[in-house]
Amino acid sequence: MSEPASESAGTAVNSGLRRSRFSFNQITAKLWGLEEMVAGCVAAGVDQVALWREPVAEYGLARSAALVRDAGLTVTTLCRSGFFQLPDWFDDNRRAIDEAAALGTKVLVLVSGGLPDGSRDLAGARRHVADAIGRLAPYAAAAGVTLAIEPLHPMYAADRCVISTWDQAMAIAEQHPAGQVGVTVDTYHLWWDDTVLEKIARAGERIAIYQLADWITPLPAGVLTGRGLPGDGCVDMRAFHDAVDKAGYAGPIEVEVMNAGLWERPGREVLDVTLTAYDSVF
Amino acid sequence: MSEPASESAGTAVNSGLRRSRFSFNQITAKLWGLEEMVAGCVAAGVDQVALWREPVAEYGLARSAALVRDAGLTVTTLCRSGFFQLPDWFDDNRRAIDEAAALGTKVLVLVSGGLPDGSRDLAGARRHVADAIGRLAPYAAAAGVTLAIEPLHPMYAADRCVISTWDQAMAIAEQHPAGQVGVTVDTYHLWWDDTVLEKIARAGERIAIYQLADWITPLPAGVLTGRGLPGDGCVDMRAFHDAVDKAGYAGPIEVEVMNAGLWERPGREVLDVTLTAYDSVF
Repeated sequence: MSEPASESAGTAVNSGLRRSRFSFNQITAKLWGLEEMVAGCVAAGVDQVALWREPVAEYGLARSAALVRDAGLTVTTLCRSGFFQLPDWFDDNRRAIDEAAALGTKVLVLVSGGLPDGSRDLAGARRHVADAIGRLAPYAAAAGVTLAIEPLHPMYAADRCVISTWDQAMAIAEQHPAGQVGVTVDTYHLWWDDTVLEKIARAGERIAIYQLADWITPLPAGVLTGRGLPGDGCVDMRAFHDAVDKAGYAGPIEVEVMNAGLWERPGREVLDVTLTAYDSVF
Repeated sequence: MSEPASESAGTAVNSGLRRSRFSFNQITAKLWGLEEMVAGCVAAGVDQVALWREPVAEYGLARSAALVRDAGLTVTTLCRSGFFQLPDWFDDNRRAIDEAAALGTKVLVLVSGGLPDGSRDLAGARRHVADAIGRLAPYAAAAGVTLAIEPLHPMYAADRCVISTWDQAMAIAEQHPAGQVGVTVDTYHLWWDDTVLEKIARAGERIAIYQLADWITPLPAGVLTGRGLPGDGCVDMRAFHDAVDKAGYAGPIEVEVMNAGLWERPGREVLDVTLTAYDSVF
């Protein structure tokens, strides 16, 4: 009887290890108030969260920082800076870096933004992103914040993120020291790419954060709010786990799911189903 | 005064050359009856069309073939075969090849299909597509039909087409003689890829057909019927023209636009705006 018991204990340990890496990304329960979310996470034994700039600004930056600190929560990432097609990108991104530092997070997720209005110059927009990150990297480094370039699915290339592939993100990141500029591995955005797993496995410390969401169809209008909880769609999550493991990434694993149906449910319920989904893919 | 006249004549000649390469893809006016579409094209001086299997079957294959032949129209492609996740893919694709041959078209557009129900094995699905094309190529060759693998935008990888990139399509095509298996260049599906233009420019006779549609946002639910007429979106059409020109492609140029708003308009009006859009991007 000792073997089954030992196996069971082993499973529990692994499960516990994985659970300790879980981070609840605030957008998954978009309508949950910050105070309620922090209390809900503490009650559920979750000690890592990813925050978004807008709700943090609404609650107040210093108040938010105190709230999560007093609750013993670690902020795994702040989402998100970038949007370099906007005129005030430089100032806004420096503010985002300051906010990340104030929240005590080491990682600022960066979504590059789309084409300027009326532009067809995708290559030019991509060059601008690389230049912009080059201008921000020293400021981020001084603040102790890693810029985590997030390649978004190519369906967002026009209006949200001109950085569409792992290769593009890595090519920019590699112009800087690894601690300054890294890449966000988000299963939702990368799963279609037949070359990405082997590249992630070789990415080493360039992986700044690992985020889970699943691909489900049909896509809703606007293609923003139809993502699935891990396990609900067709992404081979275990293949991604293997790839980030091979890379040596041992950091937090965020579940970040934008889903209109999920947002209608009470926050604590969203956290519970998120935890169940998370456990299911390990 | 002779120089302006000469320039004007030159423009007219170029415009005429481009116009002579125009092919009206039937899906652009999805609800236009086949007889009316053929008559409308003849009246507009358009002598090339791309047909779809479903309306051809509805009108009757032999009748459709006679209709377009008697009208003096060339069928540039038949759309579309593939969908290799379905159980009857082998027989259905052989029928599609027969249909293409009966219509006198040399090119059958091939959309691979998505993942089998419940599957997460994207790599496996892609291997199956390569195998399936290998089994069909000899039959297509005997019928004088080129299989034109169409890489679809990665947003269709789950449910419509697991071949998401130019590289994947070319890797399969290159296992066969160029006349047997080629690739479809569709601006809508490929525009986001920062490596694609240089690859198209080197693709030579692998380019089986060149199709135009523009990327406009926001995407509608289901992401199928929100494509733009050439010039209405953010695709740099001239960069694509340059690339196919460099490759030596001198074949037909189809406008293939799936757009719910366009479908509501009378067919002849759709053809007119399509021609205007086509001329605008040359």
